[in-house]
Amino acid sequence: MRGYYNDKDDYLARLRRVEGQIRGLQRMVDEDQYCIDVLTQISAVNSALKRVAISLLDDHIRYCVVEEGSKGDADNDMVGEATAAIARLVKS
Amino acid sequence: MRGYYNDKDDYLARLRRVEGQIRGLQRMVDEDQYCIDVLTQISAVNSALKRVAISLLDDHIRYCVVEEGSKGDADNDMVGEATAAIARLVKS
Amino acid sequence: MRGYYNDKDDYLARLRRVEGQIRGLQRMVDEDQYCIDVLTQISAVNSALKRVAISLLDDHIRYCVVEEGSKGDADNDMVGEATAAIARLVKS
Amino acid sequence: MRGYYNDKDDYLARLRRVEGQIRGLQRMVDEDQYCIDVLTQISAVNSALKRVAISLLDDHIRYCVVEEGSKGDADNDMVGEATAAIARLVKS
Repeated sequence: MRGYYNDKDDYLARLRRVEGQIRGLQRMVDEDQYCIDVLTQISAVNSALKRVAISLLDDHIRYCVVEEGSKGDADNDMVGEATAAIARLVKS
Repeated sequence: MRGYYNDKDDYLARLRRVEGQIRGLQRMVDEDQYCIDVLTQISAVNSALKRVAISLLDDHIRYCVVEEGSKGDADNDMVGEATAAIARLVKS
Repeated sequence: MRGYYNDKDDYLARLRRVEGQIRGLQRMVDEDQYCIDVLTQISAVNSALKRVAISLLDDHIRYCVVEEGSKGDADNDMVGEATAAIARLVKS
Repeated sequence: MRGYYNDKDDYLARLRRVEGQIRGLQRMVDEDQYCIDVLTQISAVNSALKRVAISLLDDHIRYCVVEEGSKGDADNDMVGEATAAIARLVKS
């Protein structure tokens, strides 16, 4: 399973950018900035996080689920596990 | 690819129920029912449709993506196609 | 509260179009059309329903919540009721 | 408009917790933790951020939109601005 992160540095760079955005949100609230601008920024962070999640899912299906499936077990549990994760993401 | 619908009758029954809910929504609007109740019903329909989509995705990954992948092509296009569909669903 | 539906005919037309899309989905499943195309169509229906919901919310906040609020009750329950509906919509 | 943040300390505490979760995500990726666990954590962060957004919206509608509306202008722009923010949030 190791090494399934297609490009770990890219993921880390994106997550550090999100961390910066969260600190920016704290500053906006602390400075009483306009509520709608805070909401717009929260939507931007959510979208960025979901893009990270979609990339991780692509890697996961490509390198884990398909690999496992290629061992001949069509009922492999990894598919159910992946779709449960997608269901949580869709509602989040 | 034929026959990948694990349980076509179940999908059709769920979609017919959604169709009934949409007609119910028309009746609610036509009768000037309370706006919040209409919104609650729309949220229920969306959730039902997303549950159908998640089931379809499970079938699709299990019977199409994994099958294709088991032919030895780790870069198969079906993964990218599936994650693009997930990305659209997440934003919808 | 009557008449808060800004343009009832427009809402009904949009909901009838959604009903047609749901029947189209049943046909797609019945004819074993490609899973990804069914998913794309489900995402389109969800987006259409959410646009209807956003329009209803706009009407509701404009004509009900603000009206109620203008009677001088800043703690009016309609705000909490509206944001609870938004929370359900966001997760749906 | 100042002071519309009902409980600024509470918002800041919630955003600091989210910041901690984002740093946790970086650690998970850096340590090659299991992809599905990373996805679960991303969904948790999104849900937490959306709960913050809903609280902000409640404050905003209660203290800004209704106040503005109570000045007698039913067509006030703040409603359209708020529903545009809700539309962005719903898609994020």
